[in-house]
This record gives sequence, structure tokens and C-alpha cells, in this order.
Amino acid sequence: MLHVEGGLVGGMIYLDNAETTRVDPEVVEVMRLYMLEKYGVPIGEFGSTMEEESSEVLEGAREVIARNINANPEEIVFTSGGTESNALAIKGVAHSKRHEGTKVVASKIEHLSVLDTLRGLGQGGFDTLLLDVDGEGFVDLEGVRRSVDGARLVSVQHANQEIGTLQDLKAIGEVCEEKDVLFHCDAVQSFTKEPIDVEKVGIHLLSVSSHLIHGPKGVGALFVRKGVHPEPLLLGDDREFGLRAGTPNIPGIAGFAKAVDLVNAETVERMRGLRDQAIDLLLEIEDSKLNGPRGERRLCNNVNVTFRYVEGEAVLMHADLEGLVINTGSACYSERLEVSHVIRAIGGTHEEAHGSIRLSPSKWTTGGEIVSASEILGRVVDRLRKVSPLARARRVST
Amino acid sequence: MLHVEGGLVGGMIYLDNAETTRVDPEVVEVMRLYMLEKYGVPIGEFGSTMEEESSEVLEGAREVIARNINANPEEIVFTSGGTESNALAIKGVAHSKRHEGTKVVASKIEHLSVLDTLRGLGQGGFDTLLLDVDGEGFVDLEGVRRSVDGARLVSVQHANQEIGTLQDLKAIGEVCEEKDVLFHCDAVQSFTKEPIDVEKVGIHLLSVSSHLIHGPKGVGALFVRKGVHPEPLLLGDDREFGLRAGTPNIPGIAGFAKAVDLVNAETVERMRGLRDQAIDLLLEIEDSKLNGPRGERRLCNNVNVTFRYVEGEAVLMHADLEGLVINTGSACYSERLEVSHVIRAIGGTHEEAHGSIRLSPSKWTTGGEIVSASEILGRVVDRLRKVSPLARARRVST
Repeated sequence: MLHVEGGLVGGMIYLDNAETTRVDPEVVEVMRLYMLEKYGVPIGEFGSTMEEESSEVLEGAREVIARNINANPEEIVFTSGGTESNALAIKGVAHSKRHEGTKVVASKIEHLSVLDTLRGLGQGGFDTLLLDVDGEGFVDLEGVRRSVDGARLVSVQHANQEIGTLQDLKAIGEVCEEKDVLFHCDAVQSFTKEPIDVEKVGIHLLSVSSHLIHGPKGVGALFVRKGVHPEPLLLGDDREFGLRAGTPNIPGIAGFAKAVDLVNAETVERMRGLRDQAIDLLLEIEDSKLNGPRGERRLCNNVNVTFRYVEGEAVLMHADLEGLVINTGSACYSERLEVSHVIRAIGGTHEEAHGSIRLSPSKWTTGGEIVSASEILGRVVDRLRKVSPLARARRVST
Repeated sequence: MLHVEGGLVGGMIYLDNAETTRVDPEVVEVMRLYMLEKYGVPIGEFGSTMEEESSEVLEGAREVIARNINANPEEIVFTSGGTESNALAIKGVAHSKRHEGTKVVASKIEHLSVLDTLRGLGQGGFDTLLLDVDGEGFVDLEGVRRSVDGARLVSVQHANQEIGTLQDLKAIGEVCEEKDVLFHCDAVQSFTKEPIDVEKVGIHLLSVSSHLIHGPKGVGALFVRKGVHPEPLLLGDDREFGLRAGTPNIPGIAGFAKAVDLVNAETVERMRGLRDQAIDLLLEIEDSKLNGPRGERRLCNNVNVTFRYVEGEAVLMHADLEGLVINTGSACYSERLEVSHVIRAIGGTHEEAHGSIRLSPSKWTTGGEIVSASEILGRVVDRLRKVSPLARARRVST
């Protein structure tokens, strides 16, 4: 019925795992159990046997997430995903009467769910400030130090969604602690792929998501350090320590925890090898350029390359015709066709921002698929350049 | 592997379908497909084949929900559930710069996700007003007429979550139209069970949910009439017509639509018969009292009875020991053990509010299960009254 080999489904090479992932069949089995058999929801102290069962799986899942980031289970709040986690952290802290300051700070290359939330706060009278990054996407630490005085919150991601830059969170955490500012980290891209210890790094709020690690869509979590009090977005009951009302998505939460359980150091190391293999092969294509850093400071499954003289969207569509699924630009849904704010922030030209291509392998990706993907991209880029006015202009001038 | 007969799983009689339902196996199969094979997400105009597939299922699901309530597909916004739909409607309209008025009105027996949201708005400077209901839970229409002048929004549910009262939405809609006030309706309990036509009734915003109709948890929708502009809770992309950012939960949304497709008039009629059978059998128990109306003005699968001289929680736990899952009180998670605000609002005493029991059959419930449930409750109530000081006092005084 279902033919799967490596990352292949139906003959496709799927290298868009930073956008979303295939759910692990073991995760689906766990979800089936809680959809078809143990389908109750926790209902308080006087619950039935079914409700107690669901309460146990909920609290067990909380422990799994907490353990992964060195938090306490009662510091984990389940949400509907990374976007809600970011909103709860940033809007929640901004609107909380229990925290002070009117300034909110973030880096220029945050996910749009962070940047748009800041823009909303700005329209509501908050003072918002965006931090510059260097040519590889690293936040300027001196900039952080200069700008956070009197701030209520600093939001800096762990791994960048487009170019995979892994920020030096420990250094940022130290500045925040010194200046007594709350530190939120969007770890949606890096969760389980790159280790994080909220205690050691001094993080107050951390966003994570399920659907990028072969868990279900529609599930995420927010770590909220004891003593931090975001204002809830959703009211109506005491669930999730009073921070998130609504019937808990028990099958989704159980599936999320199972997905976390299935991650291991070996698969992460494999992805790192595939990443480096892909970077090496793609840089052999003429007039190509890596975006973001190399080595340990890059997310284990992120590859982002600009091919000059071609449009990213055209590469994407031609690759799709050859059975290769990759991504381009900001990799976020937009009717607007905006260029990548990340490539622009690291100093890329408008043309480069339009021409960047992202490949993101998963635990199921094989070395053979990376080789095939590179061959397909080589052919596609070559073909597009033959019809590109930009490339023709280049050939004439050289 | 899985033994299911009627509403029975593992020998249980499950009559708590107003709290949550077992997911239909056909829904689970649809979700499997979108978790394991077609797992892409829509990503804009330049999507790959996989992304186009997911875009098609998303738009198809929108049509299914829209058709059910006589709306247009572009008026349907998918959310993480009923609580989020209610928050987006009420907070969203209250905080929108495109609507006027500082008063928000709701009935006293709304779901807590509505009432708590109003309380939050009240703390934020809004003028909030709660409408009285009569002894069967019907909103006082003259009260609506008197109180909505200059209001921004009126929120009245379709079916009550505890006592099943079906409000006369058409009459309320007429007042709202006359007074030029937006009308939000929480239809989470009634969706697909009782027909609703947002056009005829004059509703501007309508909340629905998936997990009460054998669809997955963590999915809901909000109907937003063209020309109504709630402020989004979640920002970051243009998805859902700019009203709800975040990676869409395609498997959940596809499952929700499948659950709607599976509902038919026959199963609704069967539930209505089971409801009336249960009411008749339970009222044969001495000192029992029906809460809410009878007949066509009651939700098809709601039964709510107060047994005097016993505590609802005690009935619930003893029933659970005999394999019967029912509910009590406000049926909402609370560490606080509060009494039902609904029973209090219809004039019930504190004792009655503590002693109400809710039974809610599903399409899988059988007449035999209703008989068994009534027998179990008869035995349980009898046993509890023998040890109840309240019941002893009654015996002595008569």
C-alpha cells in the first residue's frame, strides 16, 4: 500500500524537512491508540478511569519534552504549534502585568511569527528593536549588550529557518541575565537536533514544535520558566497551569512525545554528514554560494545555496518536475512573493535573496538521494541559465 | 486488536460524548494518508506537487465546513479548536480597529471559554454584560433588546454544553441586525447535530469544533462573515485569509472534514430517540429532575438530570466502577471544584448545581446501553442515598 524507501514517497526525493516532515509510522500508531481506544480527556480530580489514562499520557509527554531541554515538567505548556508558542511567549510577556519594560528586542532574521508579533506590539505602543546579524547570520553580541537596557524581553532563535545559523545562546543569555531581561528562544528548527539546556543557557521561554521531527502537525510546546508569567492567549479553564485553555489534543501530544523519544544522536550525526555532502556537491556547480556558516555552528540538516543568474522559484518548479522537493526564499506561505528577509539581512543582494535554495534532509534521507538531488539541481540550473537574460548578460561581459 | 460494539470500548458504556468523542476509524484512515503519504503543506503560488495536493485537501475541507452552515469557503478559518475559535471571534472583534463600541454582551450560561474571555476584556476596560436565562436556559429576548444598544458584539451559543438548551438564534439575530451589532454564536456542541444557516439567522461569527463529532482533537473552525474583521491572535503569514498564521494541520483538517461528511440525518434522529429514552428512564428514579427543556428545543444528544440528596461527583465515580462513563457539573477541567454556573443560572440551588449528571450518547450508542446506564445509575443513586446525611434528614422529616 505505502511504498517508502529512504525519504522517498512515490518516487519523490523529499528534501524539505525544515518546512514539514513525514510523520513516523510509530508515531501514527501511538496516535491511533489515543484516537480509537483511550480517547478520554483529563477532567480534574474526579475523573473516570478513561480520563485518568489520558491524564497519565499527558503528564508523561510533559516529562519527555522537559527532559530533552533540562526543564521541569510543570514548566512545559502544550500549544497548537510553534507559531502559537512564539505568540504566547512574546505577546504573553508583553501584555503581562507582572513584568516591566516597554521594549521588546529580536534579531532581524527571526521567523516571521516572531517578527510579525513584534510588529503588532509596535503598533500597540511597544518599543521594538531589531538586532543586526553578520554575513553568516550571527547576532551581534555587542548590539545585544547596547540595546537591551530596560527591555522586557529579548527573542533570539536557536537555529535559523533558512540558513541554519546556530546562535551563541549562552553568550546572549549571559547578557540578558546581567541586564535582568527575559530571554525567549524560538527553537522550532533545532529542537532535538541540536542539544539545548535551558538551565545552563539562562533561557526563560523556549518554543518547540512537533511537525519538524516526524511528529504530528498542530502540536507544539512552550517552556515557561518558573516565575515567568505570560498572559494566556486562550482563556476558559485551568489547563496547562492556567496558561492555555482548551481540550488538550491528547493523540497529538502523545505523538509529539513519541517523536521526541525516537530521535537519537546517531540519526543527527547522519544528517550532519548528508548536509556536508550536499554542500560540497552543490558548490561544485558554477557561480554558487553557500548561505550561512559551515561546521558545528550550522544546524545539522540545513543546506542553503544561492545559484547566481537564476530565480529560486524557477529552480524549485523544475526540480519538482524531476521528482525533487526542495524550498526557496523564506519558505513561508505568502501570496506576496516577498524576497527572503534572512538573505537580505546577511547582506545578500535582491537577486541573491530571490535565488536561494534550501535543502533539508531527514533521518530517512540517503547519500544516494543527496547525489541524485545535486545532479538534478546541476541540470536544472544549467538549463535555466541558458534561457536567463541575467546569465546571458554575464556571458557577454566576460 | 480493538474491540468495539456500539459506544463500548473495552466493556465500557461511554456516554460522555459532549465532553469528547472516539475518533471514527474512517477519519483515522484519512488522517493516516495525510500523515504518511501526502504530508506536504501549502506554501503559496510556487508550490511543488506535494504542496498542491495539500492545498487541494485544505480548500476541499473548507468547502465541506462552509456547505454545512451555508457559508462561503472563504469565510471559514481553521483553528486549533473551539476555545481558539471563541477567542479569535470575541477578543479579535473587541481588539479590531475596524469595529466600534466598547460593550460586549453574552449569556450567563455560555461556555467558560466565552465567559473567561469576556472577563479578560472587562479587566482590559471593556464594558461587559451577561444576559439572564429562564428556568430552562433560554436567553431573555427582551433582555437582549434592552442591553445591546451600542454594543460591539453579542455572543450567544447555539446549544448549551450542560443542559442542551437550543437558543432561538433567529430571534437574537433579528435584534442584532436591527441594532447593528455583530452576532457571534458558539456552535461547538450543536455543529452537524442541529442544522444552522448563518445566512438566514444573521450570524457574523460562528465557532465549531471537530472532536465532538468523531473528528480529531486540536482542530476547529471559525466562520467569519465577509466584511467582519477580527484582529488575528496568531501572526506570521497570510494563511487562512490573514486571520490565523501557522503551519496548517492538514491531517487534522482533512479528518475534521471527513467527520462532517460522515454525519447524516438518520444518526441524529437515532440520538434524539436515545436521549428521550434516557430521560424517561432516569426520571423514574425517585427525587430526580430534568435540567433544560424537552423536545425539539433540546440538543439531540443531551441528557441532564439532578438526583437530589447525592453529590454528582460521587455518582460519577461509582458509575465509573460499574463501567459507565458520564459527566457532572460544568464538565470542564477545574482544580477548583466549582459548582455548575449553568445550573445556578437557571435557578438551581447550590445542592442541585452539585448534583447534576450529564449523559451524552453518540451515533454508536445503543438502546441496550441506555437501559444498562439507567439501571446502573438507579443502583448507584440508591446506594449513595443510603449513606447520605441529606437523604437521611429527608427520611426523618417525612
